[in-house]
Amino acid sequence: MYTVYGDRKSGNCYKVELVLHQLGLPYEWRAIDVLKKETRTPEFLALNPNGQVPLLVNADGNALPESNAILGYLAEGSGLVPADRMARAQMLRWMFFEQYTHEPNVAVARFIVAYLGRPPEHEETLRQKIENGHKALAVMERHLEKHSFFAAERYTIADIALYAYTHVAEQGLIELARYPAIHAWMERVRRQPRHLPMQA
Amino acid sequence: MYTVYGDRKSGNCYKVELVLHQLGLPYEWRAIDVLKKETRTPEFLALNPNGQVPLLVNADGNALPESNAILGYLAEGSGLVPADRMARAQMLRWMFFEQYTHEPNVAVARFIVAYLGRPPEHEETLRQKIENGHKALAVMERHLEKHSFFAAERYTIADIALYAYTHVAEQGLIELARYPAIHAWMERVRRQPRHLPMQA
Repeated sequence: MYTVYGDRKSGNCYKVELVLHQLGLPYEWRAIDVLKKETRTPEFLALNPNGQVPLLVNADGNALPESNAILGYLAEGSGLVPADRMARAQMLRWMFFEQYTHEPNVAVARFIVAYLGRPPEHEETLRQKIENGHKALAVMERHLEKHSFFAAERYTIADIALYAYTHVAEQGLIELARYPAIHAWMERVRRQPRHLPMQA
Repeated sequence: MYTVYGDRKSGNCYKVELVLHQLGLPYEWRAIDVLKKETRTPEFLALNPNGQVPLLVNADGNALPESNAILGYLAEGSGLVPADRMARAQMLRWMFFEQYTHEPNVAVARFIVAYLGRPPEHEETLRQKIENGHKALAVMERHLEKHSFFAAERYTIADIALYAYTHVAEQGLIELARYPAIHAWMERVRRQPRHLPMQA
């Protein structure tokens, strides 16, 4: 049995729940409200000094933060991770792309609009996040014009990592209409067995 | 034989060269100057549509970007990656921490100061990067007060990933004097067999 500390508004937390659900792994969900700063309490900081959700705790009591590290841990040896060494490296490559180039823009734009209520003092930041979010989506679109998924031509945890915030990008005013290959890929992701929609 | 497209000013590129050197793997280094925008030429963008170095090309001609994905690929099955599943997940956790929380602050502060020459219009960004860089270093310090390395109590690619920009943080005006555990860890990293100093 796993315990997940998570906020269902967060795409990073959604990734973890989607993998647990698709792999049929039992878990208990402990709701943490980021907006109420529940990741900043002394109790939570003792579990994760970096003060972020999601956080996975396994049956031995080991606490693992970082959404994409959790995906790698849970999915190891499953059909969601390719066996070939270079394919696995390409999967990891897209997961680092997601955390470095995609999430800091696409997720933060959504956070500013949908959760902070688009305050005027963040307008310039929002503009930059939308612009850089489109650059990340353009890199994805170019890849998906030639490939059905991000690695190994099949559904892996790289697709889960990138789907989480891409499919709600418009909540951050990042319009997806110009990305037909991304639309087709999102539909392929939603057609996977045991797909779980985001519950935000 | 590997080919690495890299810029020796970049800590992300240094990570890759350090791993290749420590594992004794043969490689050819192709110098790419980021400041001269050589990552934005049509030729380079054909290799990596995200326009970044480092980029590894293996003997089969497969191109792999993202420094930490390259580390994972090169070091798989070596002594730089723990065999235990949770230890490997913790290693990956610190590598995602490095790319999400550490590098965007510590590396960017260094870039603004050491390579852009600290232009006045970036002063507020620099202040934020220094402040957030210290937050990342404080998380590392807290971990290293109790542990000799980031995962499995031994030197892994997580240490290489975090060493790359930490040891040159002061070039970005992020003072390291307040972090004795980080100092001791950096010394342990430098004492590893076949350590290679950064050549910037």
